[in-house]
Amino acid sequence: MKLVLHGYFRSGTSYRTRLALNWKGVPFDYVGVNLVEGEQHSDAYKAKNPQGLVPALEVDGEILTQSVAILEWIEETFPQRPLLPSDPIKRAKVRAFAAAIGCDIHPLQNLRILKKARELAGDDAEAGPAWARHWISLGFDALEKLAEQADGQNGFTFGDGPTLAEIYLLPQMFNARRFGVDLAPYPRLVAADEAARALPEFERAAPENQPDAI
Amino acid sequence: MKLVLHGYFRSGTSYRTRLALNWKGVPFDYVGVNLVEGEQHSDAYKAKNPQGLVPALEVDGEILTQSVAILEWIEETFPQRPLLPSDPIKRAKVRAFAAAIGCDIHPLQNLRILKKARELAGDDAEAGPAWARHWISLGFDALEKLAEQADGQNGFTFGDGPTLAEIYLLPQMFNARRFGVDLAPYPRLVAADEAARALPEFERAAPENQPDAI
Repeated sequence: MKLVLHGYFRSGTSYRTRLALNWKGVPFDYVGVNLVEGEQHSDAYKAKNPQGLVPALEVDGEILTQSVAILEWIEETFPQRPLLPSDPIKRAKVRAFAAAIGCDIHPLQNLRILKKARELAGDDAEAGPAWARHWISLGFDALEKLAEQADGQNGFTFGDGPTLAEIYLLPQMFNARRFGVDLAPYPRLVAADEAARALPEFERAAPENQPDAI
Repeated sequence: MKLVLHGYFRSGTSYRTRLALNWKGVPFDYVGVNLVEGEQHSDAYKAKNPQGLVPALEVDGEILTQSVAILEWIEETFPQRPLLPSDPIKRAKVRAFAAAIGCDIHPLQNLRILKKARELAGDDAEAGPAWARHWISLGFDALEKLAEQADGQNGFTFGDGPTLAEIYLLPQMFNARRFGVDLAPYPRLVAADEAARALPEFERAAPENQPDAI
């Protein structure tokens, strides 16, 4: 099976996908799509993904989009080193933690949203980052509580190793640091981020270690 | 197994959950959480869901949150009348369609976001609805293309019956109409919405048919 990942080094959803593939030891080619230069809006890229968003994963020529769909496909297709527990209720709790990032934090601090928020605030350059910090902090307040209630060990959120929770958390922590969010109120999230980033498979997926990093 | 759904008649994520449970014929009790009166921020509700969002599904006393996690749990636990195809690539395409709504449209037109957008625009009452229409239309442009590429029959998006695509689409179309989005450019989405709403299981899940509808 030949996999080609179209992504951007700093895109959180691309980062998630690299983390999962690396963790499972699945080889893939990587093609950078420069979001800042607008390459995602090119006709060539939109033929692959009409939404004009990254990532897109080519699987023997078929195009998969949307990181949550790609991650579920990866988990179903490569069951080694599972990212979801086998117990149905526990699976739902891991997926809920991931979705609290994937639906309630990440989409609100995307580049395109920050641009629009800035526009709305009469082109105030501070409006974008302030908007991002607001939604990230609000989301992290809830995530920290979810992490407290979870059965994590060795720093991880659920169980004693990485799950979809860390796959979603790492890129979100990366963004939080970029926007200057105060992380002191979130010791569980900081611990999980550190535990997971220490894994060599996760380190290789980091934004700064990608060929398109600038 | 005793299920209690805490939701709000007009909440899109609550609507999704009702649709899936009804389609599979799974009985559940329904408790309305009045979002407009702020019941989701009460201590009693936050003890159930620290995020203070609906829906929450109680399963024999365990609380499941986040509609995407709840829907995957429903699909795994009640395999009858599947909402995902069995082929892995097709599953990924249905999930991507759902996620294009669940991650890229719905979270941007939530009540709490509209309030914040209005604030940013110096309390301009038109700013919220205009913001919602912008993101819904942008998302629908992409969804219509995804629907064109899909293998739907009888009006449905994928296959010849409802899937997770319609579970996500119906609440989003309901919101689009509420915000006055022009639906003329989206004939495939309109057809899928009509085909699915005609199903009695889906009709029973509609906002106007809930006990907390006002």
